[in-house]
Amino acid sequence: MKIALAQLNPTIGDLKNNAQQILETAKNVSTKEVTLLLTPELSLCGYPPRDLLLNTHFIAEMEQTLNQLARDLPPDLYALIGLATPNSNFTVTGGKSLFNSIALLTAGKVQNIFHKRLLPTYDVFDENRYFGSGTEANHFTIDGIKIGLTICEDLWNDEDFWGKRSYLVNPIEELAQQQIDLSINLSASPYSLGKQQVREAMLKHTAIKYDRALLYVNQVGANDDLIFDGCSLGFDRSGEVVCRGVSFDRDLIIVEFDEASQDLKPGKITPQNDSTDAEVWQALVLGVRDYMGKCGFQKVILGLSGGIDSALVAAIAAAAIGADKVLGVLMPSPYSSEHSISDAIELAANLGINTETIPIGDLMQGFDRTLNPLFIGTEFGLAEENIQSRIRGNLLMAISNKFGHLLLSTGNKSEMAVGYCTLYGDMNGGLAVIADVPKMRVFSICKWLNREREIIPPNIITKPPSAELKPGQVDQDSLPPYEVLDAILEAIVCEHQSLEQLIDRGYDSQVVEKIIKLVKRAEFKRRQAPPGLKITDRAFGTGWRMPIAAK
Amino acid sequence: MKIALAQLNPTIGDLKNNAQQILETAKNVSTKEVTLLLTPELSLCGYPPRDLLLNTHFIAEMEQTLNQLARDLPPDLYALIGLATPNSNFTVTGGKSLFNSIALLTAGKVQNIFHKRLLPTYDVFDENRYFGSGTEANHFTIDGIKIGLTICEDLWNDEDFWGKRSYLVNPIEELAQQQIDLSINLSASPYSLGKQQVREAMLKHTAIKYDRALLYVNQVGANDDLIFDGCSLGFDRSGEVVCRGVSFDRDLIIVEFDEASQDLKPGKITPQNDSTDAEVWQALVLGVRDYMGKCGFQKVILGLSGGIDSALVAAIAAAAIGADKVLGVLMPSPYSSEHSISDAIELAANLGINTETIPIGDLMQGFDRTLNPLFIGTEFGLAEENIQSRIRGNLLMAISNKFGHLLLSTGNKSEMAVGYCTLYGDMNGGLAVIADVPKMRVFSICKWLNREREIIPPNIITKPPSAELKPGQVDQDSLPPYEVLDAILEAIVCEHQSLEQLIDRGYDSQVVEKIIKLVKRAEFKRRQAPPGLKITDRAFGTGWRMPIAAK
Repeated sequence: MKIALAQLNPTIGDLKNNAQQILETAKNVSTKEVTLLLTPELSLCGYPPRDLLLNTHFIAEMEQTLNQLARDLPPDLYALIGLATPNSNFTVTGGKSLFNSIALLTAGKVQNIFHKRLLPTYDVFDENRYFGSGTEANHFTIDGIKIGLTICEDLWNDEDFWGKRSYLVNPIEELAQQQIDLSINLSASPYSLGKQQVREAMLKHTAIKYDRALLYVNQVGANDDLIFDGCSLGFDRSGEVVCRGVSFDRDLIIVEFDEASQDLKPGKITPQNDSTDAEVWQALVLGVRDYMGKCGFQKVILGLSGGIDSALVAAIAAAAIGADKVLGVLMPSPYSSEHSISDAIELAANLGINTETIPIGDLMQGFDRTLNPLFIGTEFGLAEENIQSRIRGNLLMAISNKFGHLLLSTGNKSEMAVGYCTLYGDMNGGLAVIADVPKMRVFSICKWLNREREIIPPNIITKPPSAELKPGQVDQDSLPPYEVLDAILEAIVCEHQSLEQLIDRGYDSQVVEKIIKLVKRAEFKRRQAPPGLKITDRAFGTGWRMPIAAK
Repeated sequence: MKIALAQLNPTIGDLKNNAQQILETAKNVSTKEVTLLLTPELSLCGYPPRDLLLNTHFIAEMEQTLNQLARDLPPDLYALIGLATPNSNFTVTGGKSLFNSIALLTAGKVQNIFHKRLLPTYDVFDENRYFGSGTEANHFTIDGIKIGLTICEDLWNDEDFWGKRSYLVNPIEELAQQQIDLSINLSASPYSLGKQQVREAMLKHTAIKYDRALLYVNQVGANDDLIFDGCSLGFDRSGEVVCRGVSFDRDLIIVEFDEASQDLKPGKITPQNDSTDAEVWQALVLGVRDYMGKCGFQKVILGLSGGIDSALVAAIAAAAIGADKVLGVLMPSPYSSEHSISDAIELAANLGINTETIPIGDLMQGFDRTLNPLFIGTEFGLAEENIQSRIRGNLLMAISNKFGHLLLSTGNKSEMAVGYCTLYGDMNGGLAVIADVPKMRVFSICKWLNREREIIPPNIITKPPSAELKPGQVDQDSLPPYEVLDAILEAIVCEHQSLEQLIDRGYDSQVVEKIIKLVKRAEFKRRQAPPGLKITDRAFGTGWRMPIAAK
């Protein structure tokens, strides 16, 4: 039996076009003797649909779209389609009004509907907000082959692999008891650094443990802050990879299940990424491209400071949508160094992007004059530094508003963590491209980018980072070196470590105390930040829910 | 037996001071022959602690604080204290690592720990992110009186009252079967318009249905966007109110349970609010006061446009922290009408707040000059309108940064819904005071405010609303009348209605279609808005989780 793994990139809520995407894929594979078509979790509405699920008319439309799709599909093809379905019984039994489901379509009809059983409610996940848990082990039989079906999280509860249970039940264990021949998992599993390795190891472990071939289909594409990496997989009964889809792009893989050996035959195996920098780069490029495409933007604008953060974002934007659609704006002030302009110009030339130069000295003087009656007698300080950043933010937004370009903000995760950024200034933008990339990773991606030819001018990489908001200022005036800062931030933000635990690890208590305080104090800024593309285990976005008015 | 209901106002995460607040209350009531002290849900850490709960050292500190409190309390007093406790078994059984618990303290020790059973995951609630469900009916006995304990949501699952079940189990039903003598519910139930009436009706229903006296203690105080209204309650077995705490302030109520009649004796009954405008007003005043107090601000600043929104916010701020701590800034442009200045000055005089006037004409010209090379040949439009708003936003933030005042933003819910506001301009601020107040409610609160003497100048209430960003502009140029707009928004935002459903209700399809589109398009602005005080069933805040890049 031939099975097609359709690694699709749906747009959230766009039922019609998502169904069309599935239909085209189905027509394509049905000419290739494929019996069963697999699509990702919630393939009809895209993942995560979030509060669109609270609109009952959206749920009703989804059902209609599914029924139409069933009628339109080639009648001899079986297809598994992800969608939210109503729990008609919920007012009587209690529980949520919906299930996260997979429909089995064939012969013009919905043949069966299966419900997801384990609902994640950690990090960026809120599934229990919308869905109730399915209570049955999900399986069906095609041509005498008994297929066990799990949906994403359903497979992430193996105590041997994780060293603990996360949920009371284990769907894959129950399926194994049902004597299935083949295991299928349909997912929408967001990307983070290192997750592909963990996922592959876990799936391999599952195939071996139950001695069953396993197919895993993952959504691809970025939806707001979440990037889905695809990288769909197949394993034979011995846990060997028999197919691997590409990362960060749509893909279609056809594999064959051999009934005699009850195993999958080897198929197309895309090699794994050979560098974490390359992996993050691809993730961010996809993140920018999809945000623009799904929101309907054609061009981007960003401020080019001559620093490394805006340099990297410009390079990502050029790779995502083409250099000719990227406008870099230089906004020098009297505090700008000469190299900040020459470095930015050199970068723009290397990338082939357009630039405009708008000096802000006059506007700085204008604000000084305007505020003089109130500020007279006070010293130059944070207020004046922020004014510069906000003049730039206002100019960028004016150009964005005038020409309809998307403004990209360029702050990195280290800055966002300690609040080394100006709200309504350099934080401005529709998308924060590297808001989850720690500064040290910014450096390493830029070095990786220069591996074949010089894209980021070397001076941008080697000069000491500076906001250039007052004469001679550098980041390390008020922050520890970025190697130290990033390590401490990783411990605080991702590992939930306390001051005492960090002191035990050998860090200076005053430094750690200061950073903890800075992270806490910057919460009000982060609350107002644009969506930032998530590439780590814990980003300051959907999955970071901290109180502001707290001790 | 005398029982004290302590309606406390904890600060999130401030374990030491929250414990101190409980201890002082305990010492106070123990001189009044009180046997049992009741405090709200999670009284030790405040509600909602959100992702602070993911820090294991925070959980450990909470346990230490509880043990210390047990030792410090008067030894003959029983006290119920809310806190998060570890589920030591979760890695084996699966499930979450914590419980939302109530500890019973007496004689220097923690005598018992009870776990919340029904965990809300709708609107602003994410309890399943952190907590597992308790599985036992919670009760204990003091002086021969058997007391059944429920925690907030545990009581919100009566199918007779709601016409449906929301959860599989019903804790209060189970307690009734255990023959309890008295029922206690400890809550942290956020305020919204009309909720006090629903809550009181539901509690009354429960008392009557089970023929048991019922005590209900609710948290008071604002934590970021959520306002807790207190209004703790007691009911006798016939469902009559025997005590009612004040709304929107701390309170301490002592009631007596009569063992002979197995019923509560009448105590202090604060009257219900007699006007919804008064109720919302009090909620917002508390919201501003607590955000400032808990974040450590002394003074506020806001832009005074001469319009009704900033007038109301100024009045709320003056009531919250004192008129002398409020600075209103007038920032007239060449498009400002004369009355916008005179109305603002009159308002400031009525309130007794300070003002500064900073004309922005020069800076507008400065931006025109600076952007001229790029904008030459284009027409005045949205970009230029937004520049004005952003100049004002920048000036306000400069003053905020210079003097450490909190900037309050003044946009109302109707504006926020349709995006009739400027990101990085008038949306700037640390707290959005009326972001959940629809425009028609803004009018009615201002009229109510003027019931005894003129506070809001009548011209501010009667003139047509205008952003004054171009000559002769009024809101109704591009929006339907606010009566119509607010009704449609209520249907879309709170009632999840579709275009078709609104047409069925008799609304013009083009108008509705336009508003639906505006609401969708403004999502990116709302994502970057400051926290807004929640006063309706559905606010654009913690409980509004919409995708941006969606169709």
